[in-house]
Amino acid sequence: MNGAQALLHTLVNADVQVCFSNPGTSEMHLVAALDTVPRMRGVLCLFEGVATGAADGYGRMASAPAAVLLHLGPGLANGLANLHNARRAGTPILNIVGDHATYHQRYDAPLESDIHALAGSVSGWIRRSARSRDVPADAAEAVAAALTPPGQVATLILPADVCWSEGAQPATPVRSRPASPVHDSVVESAAAVLKSGEPCALLLGGGATRRHGLEAAGRIAAATGAKLLCETFPARLERGAGLPAVERLAYLGEMAAAQMTGLRHLILAGAKRPVSFFAYPNQPSDLVPEGCQVHVLAGDGDDAAGALAHLADLVAGGVAPPVQQPSRPEPPSGPLTAEKAAAVIGALLPEDAIVSDESNTSGLWLAGATAGAPPHDWLTLTGGAIGQGMPLATGAAIACPSRPVVCLEADGSAMYTLSALWTQAREGLDVTTVIFNNGSYAVLNMELARVGADPNSAGEAARSMFDLSRPDLDFVSLAQGMGVPAGRARTAEELAAQFGKALSEPGPHLIEAVVPSVF
Amino acid sequence: MNGAQALLHTLVNADVQVCFSNPGTSEMHLVAALDTVPRMRGVLCLFEGVATGAADGYGRMASAPAAVLLHLGPGLANGLANLHNARRAGTPILNIVGDHATYHQRYDAPLESDIHALAGSVSGWIRRSARSRDVPADAAEAVAAALTPPGQVATLILPADVCWSEGAQPATPVRSRPASPVHDSVVESAAAVLKSGEPCALLLGGGATRRHGLEAAGRIAAATGAKLLCETFPARLERGAGLPAVERLAYLGEMAAAQMTGLRHLILAGAKRPVSFFAYPNQPSDLVPEGCQVHVLAGDGDDAAGALAHLADLVAGGVAPPVQQPSRPEPPSGPLTAEKAAAVIGALLPEDAIVSDESNTSGLWLAGATAGAPPHDWLTLTGGAIGQGMPLATGAAIACPSRPVVCLEADGSAMYTLSALWTQAREGLDVTTVIFNNGSYAVLNMELARVGADPNSAGEAARSMFDLSRPDLDFVSLAQGMGVPAGRARTAEELAAQFGKALSEPGPHLIEAVVPSVF
Repeated sequence: MNGAQALLHTLVNADVQVCFSNPGTSEMHLVAALDTVPRMRGVLCLFEGVATGAADGYGRMASAPAAVLLHLGPGLANGLANLHNARRAGTPILNIVGDHATYHQRYDAPLESDIHALAGSVSGWIRRSARSRDVPADAAEAVAAALTPPGQVATLILPADVCWSEGAQPATPVRSRPASPVHDSVVESAAAVLKSGEPCALLLGGGATRRHGLEAAGRIAAATGAKLLCETFPARLERGAGLPAVERLAYLGEMAAAQMTGLRHLILAGAKRPVSFFAYPNQPSDLVPEGCQVHVLAGDGDDAAGALAHLADLVAGGVAPPVQQPSRPEPPSGPLTAEKAAAVIGALLPEDAIVSDESNTSGLWLAGATAGAPPHDWLTLTGGAIGQGMPLATGAAIACPSRPVVCLEADGSAMYTLSALWTQAREGLDVTTVIFNNGSYAVLNMELARVGADPNSAGEAARSMFDLSRPDLDFVSLAQGMGVPAGRARTAEELAAQFGKALSEPGPHLIEAVVPSVF
Repeated sequence: MNGAQALLHTLVNADVQVCFSNPGTSEMHLVAALDTVPRMRGVLCLFEGVATGAADGYGRMASAPAAVLLHLGPGLANGLANLHNARRAGTPILNIVGDHATYHQRYDAPLESDIHALAGSVSGWIRRSARSRDVPADAAEAVAAALTPPGQVATLILPADVCWSEGAQPATPVRSRPASPVHDSVVESAAAVLKSGEPCALLLGGGATRRHGLEAAGRIAAATGAKLLCETFPARLERGAGLPAVERLAYLGEMAAAQMTGLRHLILAGAKRPVSFFAYPNQPSDLVPEGCQVHVLAGDGDDAAGALAHLADLVAGGVAPPVQQPSRPEPPSGPLTAEKAAAVIGALLPEDAIVSDESNTSGLWLAGATAGAPPHDWLTLTGGAIGQGMPLATGAAIACPSRPVVCLEADGSAMYTLSALWTQAREGLDVTTVIFNNGSYAVLNMELARVGADPNSAGEAARSMFDLSRPDLDFVSLAQGMGVPAGRARTAEELAAQFGKALSEPGPHLIEAVVPSVF
């Protein structure tokens, strides 16, 4: 068989079952091979950023890599922003980039560019297959590399002739390295810190924000009085009624500082040392308070949940973790605001929902409003590259076809990768998207003042750069143009009726929630 | 003044008048400075690929750089594909990328990534300003670098603190190097080749596809019998009634080979040696026929039009160039096809139009149908990275506000950067977009067979990767959702009526031309 066919056989044997694709001529043999390997599901995306974001959503929920199929350097470039978010999330992704035939590269044809340089900015592993018969083994290693804890983007560059040439045979899967167990002495030293009686917090990230890690952390907090925090933008946070509640570190540095005031010890479990998202004049980049010592219980690639369980056994004995009690907001009424929209969502969020949250400023009240909803997963914008939410929801829905997916999306961010809706319609995915349409890049209204730009000199020209009205975006028309049923809500009652109806029906829906800007 | 203000003053003094922007927090001081430098026009784009493609369109028409303002590595990544096309077009662009404050970079905040690696893939010049007072001189050099013949992407990376710190003063413009004159001996040797009587062709590219180069080349061809060809995807081709006609080298290698059959000499004037766009099994990458000698009259950065004028003086004495006679296709009727759509466009194309052509397979008949239309500029997809057409039209309309812009756009390509329509609506740009909606990536239907994929094994799964129906894209709804009036044409008469009306009214319009697929 040819390299392309052997590749797909190798991937399905390694449990890579989905390929989010936006192919071109140099990938035609890979596309043709889909018919010879029906266990591989090709999912067409109309833009590469949708494909890579969907692979991120799939990987976060399946804990297994999806493949992405991209077209040369420019196709990879279009997919980079969401691969950047995936890199920050520690998501396993097999990123396949088709290239010109090996002998064609030196002619500098129009699409030739430096694929390796682009891939290097997001990948933990890169290889270019040189011969058809190398492809299967390279692919098996790529899958294992993608799964290397905590998970990473593995980029496999496949020249066209390497795919179309015969002489390849499927390779057997390569076992991936498990998460590294944390040494007893590290756990014991954290236990000593917790028992010191000094003010202490646990900061959870990575795998520690799933049920097992949270329960262990909850026990530790209950037994020792340590504060429980998780990173600002967790890749996947399990939360809701019956799970231990954890406070997310605030986006704004001064609010994060307030959360950590008075701490003498900060124990990191799968999280990085907290830093300010952006720099601001005369504000610290490092958010750890003075006099607070930082202890790494589990770093990147370590078994953070296992370390927390061990630590809980040392300091919390038979203590059970306190859990969030069920509670729902009262259904609000009247003209819609971001706060009321959050209450509607909290009142109706279905059990086992997957929430893709890119609501930005309009999402300010969501955490509170949904805290006591039935258990659900919350996926956030890990790398700050907007345009993640709708692709992420798409991939999550493919990974978990029996779970309802809710995508909470800011208007400005939605416009980056809107064609995810088309893929949702084509694949019949059960995704309910709520667009918070406040007619602006509201976060920049806030940031303009925070970075110290003179509000007297920043006038109409500056503010027009945040203004998404003139003309208004009509997300109902945009969704319908891609085959997704849609409606507009201007009151809390309208949102509740439309959100409830969308959740009760299969397939994708979109609701444009018209809200005033928070800033 | 601060670095940002000094930057904008320096740019407007260097005749950079437009900044296509998609800013974020790290660019807030640059945005704030817009109000202190009102001569700089900020144009908001909802996606970075729109901003970079618009700068390409602006630069091709203005022969002067626009600035682009992007947000860190991920923002640059989103803009790379159209910067790739601009690189291939030799378009001057000042690419400004905001970065974290200098002291913040080492904290590896979520948006941190390798900006330099990304910029390197498309830029001819890169610099990171280290201090506020360096910004103006760096910017002046960047503008000169962008204008270095034939034109290139110059990337200036500006850390946030370098923009917000005081102590900068505007810099005076730096003179850019002009195109290199071609040495007499090179011109004389080309003249000898032309006079040899052996079969010869001129292949024009770069600056040689504008009126002066074409007229000189037309004289040479008339006097010597040399064949007149231009590169497959010229950045800007002046054509139509009253201009010398030039045949574009075909996209398909075998057709290009046929155009060059029997040649003994190929003289390159601003064009590269012709190579196949993609590699195909058992097809040559190099398209120059055996026994044909290649002569470089003018390479990258040389004054190709000047060299042609000199050459014409040597071989064509007082010969006048033969020019295209005016002619328009008969207005067709009945159900619309791509061929009839081309005839409608040829019948109605207004004088002095700028055509942004990303019609791909549906555009097969456009060259013939518009050959005798009133004089116009034709802009093509130079780098093969689809999603160029609508941003390019946007920037061209800003560069040339008194000229009608016509954007001929394939359905699949349109979906990459569709939000260009919103910027057209906001800025009131006179752009008439015709979407050729054939419900497929039709070029891939053709390429699948051409790369030798077995049509028996490539079945439903493969073909679904080219299928843009299920669900159908409704471009009328999509355009209306971004504030652009739109209609749908299913017959030639409907297209003619709507196209004529759109051209007669100011502001943007979109027509969805429903056509069967050519392949």
